[in-house]
Amino acid sequence: MNKNYIEPNEWSIIENGFDAENVEASESLFSIGNGALGQRANFEEDYSGKTFQGSYIGGIYYPDKTRVGWWKNGYPEYFAKVLNAPNWIGIHVVINGNKLDLNTCKISNFQRELNMKEGWLSRSFNAELPSSEKIAVSAKRFISIKYNEVGAIEYNVKAINFSGEIEFSPYIDAGVMNEDANYDEFFWEILEVVEGENSGCILSKTLKTEFHVSTAMEISLAKNNKEVLVAQKTKVEEKKITYSYKIDINEGDVATIFKFGSYTSSLNYKNEDLNSAALSNVQNAKELGFNALLESQIKSWDEIWSTADIVIEGDVKAQQGIRFNIFQLNQTYMGTDARLNIGPKGFTGEKYGGSTYWDTEAYCIPFYMATKDQEVAKNLLKYRYNQLDKAIENAEKLGFTNGAALYPMVTMNGEECHNEWEITFEEIHRNGAMIYGIYNYVNYTQDFSYVPEYGLEVMIAVARFWYQRANYSAAKDKYVILGVTGPNEYENNINNNYYTNYLAKWCIEYTVECLNKVKHDYTNDFDRVMSKTNLTFEETYKWLNVSDNMYFPYSEEHQVYLQQDGFLDKELIPVEDLDASQRPINQKWSWDRILRSCYIKQADTLQGMFLFEDKFKKEEIERHFDFYEPITVHESSLSPCVHSILAASIDRMPKAYEMYLRTSRLDLDDYNHEVHEGCHITSMAGTWMAVVQGFGGMRVWEDGILSFNPQIPKEWKSYAFTINFRGNIIKVYKSQTECKFLNESEKEIKMYVNDTEILIPPKKSIIV
Amino acid sequence: MNKNYIEPNEWSIIENGFDAENVEASESLFSIGNGALGQRANFEEDYSGKTFQGSYIGGIYYPDKTRVGWWKNGYPEYFAKVLNAPNWIGIHVVINGNKLDLNTCKISNFQRELNMKEGWLSRSFNAELPSSEKIAVSAKRFISIKYNEVGAIEYNVKAINFSGEIEFSPYIDAGVMNEDANYDEFFWEILEVVEGENSGCILSKTLKTEFHVSTAMEISLAKNNKEVLVAQKTKVEEKKITYSYKIDINEGDVATIFKFGSYTSSLNYKNEDLNSAALSNVQNAKELGFNALLESQIKSWDEIWSTADIVIEGDVKAQQGIRFNIFQLNQTYMGTDARLNIGPKGFTGEKYGGSTYWDTEAYCIPFYMATKDQEVAKNLLKYRYNQLDKAIENAEKLGFTNGAALYPMVTMNGEECHNEWEITFEEIHRNGAMIYGIYNYVNYTQDFSYVPEYGLEVMIAVARFWYQRANYSAAKDKYVILGVTGPNEYENNINNNYYTNYLAKWCIEYTVECLNKVKHDYTNDFDRVMSKTNLTFEETYKWLNVSDNMYFPYSEEHQVYLQQDGFLDKELIPVEDLDASQRPINQKWSWDRILRSCYIKQADTLQGMFLFEDKFKKEEIERHFDFYEPITVHESSLSPCVHSILAASIDRMPKAYEMYLRTSRLDLDDYNHEVHEGCHITSMAGTWMAVVQGFGGMRVWEDGILSFNPQIPKEWKSYAFTINFRGNIIKVYKSQTECKFLNESEKEIKMYVNDTEILIPPKKSIIV
Repeated sequence: MNKNYIEPNEWSIIENGFDAENVEASESLFSIGNGALGQRANFEEDYSGKTFQGSYIGGIYYPDKTRVGWWKNGYPEYFAKVLNAPNWIGIHVVINGNKLDLNTCKISNFQRELNMKEGWLSRSFNAELPSSEKIAVSAKRFISIKYNEVGAIEYNVKAINFSGEIEFSPYIDAGVMNEDANYDEFFWEILEVVEGENSGCILSKTLKTEFHVSTAMEISLAKNNKEVLVAQKTKVEEKKITYSYKIDINEGDVATIFKFGSYTSSLNYKNEDLNSAALSNVQNAKELGFNALLESQIKSWDEIWSTADIVIEGDVKAQQGIRFNIFQLNQTYMGTDARLNIGPKGFTGEKYGGSTYWDTEAYCIPFYMATKDQEVAKNLLKYRYNQLDKAIENAEKLGFTNGAALYPMVTMNGEECHNEWEITFEEIHRNGAMIYGIYNYVNYTQDFSYVPEYGLEVMIAVARFWYQRANYSAAKDKYVILGVTGPNEYENNINNNYYTNYLAKWCIEYTVECLNKVKHDYTNDFDRVMSKTNLTFEETYKWLNVSDNMYFPYSEEHQVYLQQDGFLDKELIPVEDLDASQRPINQKWSWDRILRSCYIKQADTLQGMFLFEDKFKKEEIERHFDFYEPITVHESSLSPCVHSILAASIDRMPKAYEMYLRTSRLDLDDYNHEVHEGCHITSMAGTWMAVVQGFGGMRVWEDGILSFNPQIPKEWKSYAFTINFRGNIIKVYKSQTECKFLNESEKEIKMYVNDTEILIPPKKSIIV
Repeated sequence: MNKNYIEPNEWSIIENGFDAENVEASESLFSIGNGALGQRANFEEDYSGKTFQGSYIGGIYYPDKTRVGWWKNGYPEYFAKVLNAPNWIGIHVVINGNKLDLNTCKISNFQRELNMKEGWLSRSFNAELPSSEKIAVSAKRFISIKYNEVGAIEYNVKAINFSGEIEFSPYIDAGVMNEDANYDEFFWEILEVVEGENSGCILSKTLKTEFHVSTAMEISLAKNNKEVLVAQKTKVEEKKITYSYKIDINEGDVATIFKFGSYTSSLNYKNEDLNSAALSNVQNAKELGFNALLESQIKSWDEIWSTADIVIEGDVKAQQGIRFNIFQLNQTYMGTDARLNIGPKGFTGEKYGGSTYWDTEAYCIPFYMATKDQEVAKNLLKYRYNQLDKAIENAEKLGFTNGAALYPMVTMNGEECHNEWEITFEEIHRNGAMIYGIYNYVNYTQDFSYVPEYGLEVMIAVARFWYQRANYSAAKDKYVILGVTGPNEYENNINNNYYTNYLAKWCIEYTVECLNKVKHDYTNDFDRVMSKTNLTFEETYKWLNVSDNMYFPYSEEHQVYLQQDGFLDKELIPVEDLDASQRPINQKWSWDRILRSCYIKQADTLQGMFLFEDKFKKEEIERHFDFYEPITVHESSLSPCVHSILAASIDRMPKAYEMYLRTSRLDLDDYNHEVHEGCHITSMAGTWMAVVQGFGGMRVWEDGILSFNPQIPKEWKSYAFTINFRGNIIKVYKSQTECKFLNESEKEIKMYVNDTEILIPPKKSIIV
């Protein structure tokens, strides 16, 4: 892998020069999407080199048969998997009878650009074919945010050294497979191939899940910037439809094809309307024209950036990194559809079945809450509410009763999509993140109504889970939680994981607190929920007996909570004393060796202190940070951001900055040698938090008051970010010498800055 | 599964009546083998119903690609798997042009018998074909012990209600696959199909491992007991050769085919000699004739039974059960080839890749040591010695250095054949069993020479493993062993498993003890081994520092060693209080629930007390038995035997008998609903121990003295067994009223009976 080939640029991701070794990595990095659908940056024309083809539609999944070496009771037989969708971007390009294929041509002046400010992908290059024709190609493509079922391509070919004929053969190919199919099965059935004049579509449905999708294309052609009408030759195959157009050209002429594509799916239409809707989409797009569509695209992204941008002065790579993170998060999830969520690879790859992890609640909600309307975060919460029945089923499979719920580790539709027992069955702290997400939302927005309307049912089901999952230890005269995996997945089947026990106790207490509030303020909802869940207050007393008597492993000697029982039996050798040849340990060491070592993959005890910072004294956090960080290897993409934020909160800016560097350009610099499989979307929200919560020190304390404590890495000139706080836009600017807050709203805003209360009048700024 | 269909009989396994539901179970139960090769009891003629076809050759394996859901560092990419071999038993039988197929005929008088006394399998039935012909079939088959590459079939068809033509088409089919192939691959390549007159063979080789095998057949035919010569039609296909013979018959006539089959393999021949050797095998067999071969078979089994039989009076099912166990053990392993070992399914199925488990050292060696020449046990030990290099490689993969060895959990050739991290990497107590096997052999035989010649190198490599695997715990000021799975596989990744720590300490101590003895008595061997292993006594002092300071979890309250750290945090609810609907828990509960429960799959702490009984006081064993047995679910086939023996040793005969019943007819009564996959061979040695060591109370104490303490279950009239003790045959008889010892050797034997020393003169018996 040729690392660091991305050109530093404040607003664009740029690749200069063609290197076949980078094709798959670039296909991930230059991916485009609009939250509803997306695609890897595959070439439009044929490419015979190594490539990973991928187009994805949000919410369309397939239950793939589980593959394991040795079956354990409780594994899901099938699980939902991100599905590669029919390809509409393809265009065979033939020059005087010779196929254009970058793998066989001499290429020069190759440049690829992902313009994040405006939301489009472009590519230009000169190619000399083996048959000696020289051409200059430029192509631009985007997935529309405004018309969110539509994408558009402009593809130009200039004849440099010849006259003759250029043949464009745009096609739809529904014969796609998943790279990660467990049994090489085909997941789509083709129902209908519809041909027409310059437009056509294929209706297909997914096997088993029976999602119906129509994939349409519409073509127009131009020569030297003037539309031309060209005779169409149609080829219909079982799973593919291809139109061919031949354009006569002279040396210096430019032949252009515009291709508009669309997906319509049974998530949004009746099956019988899918084809006409898709065809009408592409026809409207063509009538609007490529340029008008592009204008609206630029406008959409301008609106997104107005509330989401982070400006960093004095460090182009840091600027590029943070914008790439924000851009990809927006491409993955726009927040308008409660059926969708934030896949760990977004629309950039298909690794990991399913799309939703506890990352959403623990890492992503703050970003969406602060950069978008609060409905967006609410939709993320509702996603889990809508899957509560499946979470209860999931818990029943594992032997829980009485409406206890265990949310899946990974899911698309509520079904568990993972099958390692130590994760699937034991990494149960995820259940607590569901409740933390609600708490975080209520606290940030002060919109408590979500609790009586939706959240309370989830909270009761999760509290029931914790109550049943803990057991009384006669030896300790306390309640213990045995056999878990904490956020640090480098420990499995451990007892009394501090983070898990803490969350369990907190979940019960917060649920009972909310129950009391709902009883008092939302009588109708209270009656409805108590009746629906068959809950009595007697039951909650039993829960409280567990939470009141929860056991937490603690070391008097080190004055720290221990990650788990027996942690001090390990040899505590700091990471810095570990030979470099041994790292990353997840590539160098066998699993047993990792497990019995002291090394921590990502924040675990510290994750609790990050989420519940206000419950701990600063010295306590320092002590735990000093105990755990030196033995943390940060081999999860979710690790550095949390440590960056905690380090900033205990005034250790060099450490905070070091950790920030590790999170912000993870994919652009391909630290983990795996970007070809797709980008790490959810950890990008952690990068955003590292700036806003870490350097900016933003908090919303339990009393609902906004607070900042801005610091700046000495390597930067300044940084600035924007947040949407309960509908009020606040801009924060911090340089080495100045700290400024601008209240763009119509209301006075009260906040704390460095522990001092300040009031900012409407439309005014204040320098602190 | 229709259980309990096997007729009680002292010497035979008998099935009366045809039930298609029982076909696969009977194919397992009626399996035949001779320690070098074996086969399931598949029908010779075609059968279109459910069947599991299997023929196996000892030592011929295939490295199948590992399949997992999620890869962990350290898993083997490939592992050796028991290989289904070309089928030579098949005979298409056609009556007047109509194929005989029990799945389509009316069947009556069906009987199948496995005669264990004489070592043959027979089958007889009347069939009415859909085309109305009625026939009576009788067939007999065996795998010769004396000519151990050869098997023979006699197959008779009597025409009951018609005249016409019977066509026999015997064949060799090399187009076989493994049922458990991970990727449905074909494992054999066919090299040559050799046709001839009444004989033929196929030469094939295994892919990757390149084992070459020739499979031959030789045919002769008879009518009404007189040999007939019949014209042969030959059909050669790519992977199959078939000869056809038509015999004209009248009503009442009997047509007979004799088929002799043979495998020769590159384990024993040069590749170019395989075909001629196989063809010569079957020709010799034919010349000897079926009846002479059968006579020699009966003689071979008579010799085996003369030292291995256990006679139980007063309980036919118990008698049948123990003989079935002894018979299958002998069919699986005869002990004459140090390249072979005792597969958990023998030649009765292909479940579980690989063939050798720690079962061999912990369960099987005592049986072979006491019922055969001591060379047999020595061959079993040498098997591990020969695989020492691979065990060192295996340890290196997991990060161990300096010649430390970790023997694989399951293997065929030294390579690890299992890939669950909690087993493969963590169930390391198996390494101790390797040393225990040596200790047990030396102690029983007093043949110490095995240690300097072979064993010491293994011991040093294993001691090095334990030294590196333990780590110093500052918190405990002791050495601890973290992250293991004990014999009780219902706990994973636990710390300080008592059994594992005990074995580790013992291994080091025994190794140093042997080192000192070898230094003193075998100077040349000592120098050779020290130089080969680069060992110094300084290194052994470091080992001893670990063994001297090994940590053992102990409960003062219960006065028992704890199975592992934190065991008392569990809810200790006895198995008898568990609802019957919840059992077996391995079928009813998800894995996490099993793990965090207190339930024990098989002896763990008690396994240590079983192996090292002389190191514990009787009261101590009682206390541990009373603590652990009530929470033991005995869901491993290896559990009841150990508990039966321990119960007998603490004078609890009802418990000992209850446990004996669970072990002795496990397969015959198909307790686990899985006998169709094959029989549980290794636990059968545990059944033998339950009689000899349990009821008979046989021990060889550390001073090398033989000792008995016979008891008898009140349900039996008497039992008797024979042991070979250092070349001396001793017969033990115990009834409700009498206890008798017969010394068949030429030497006086000294032994303890009920703690009293007795001397038995040569060829004399003594009643105690």
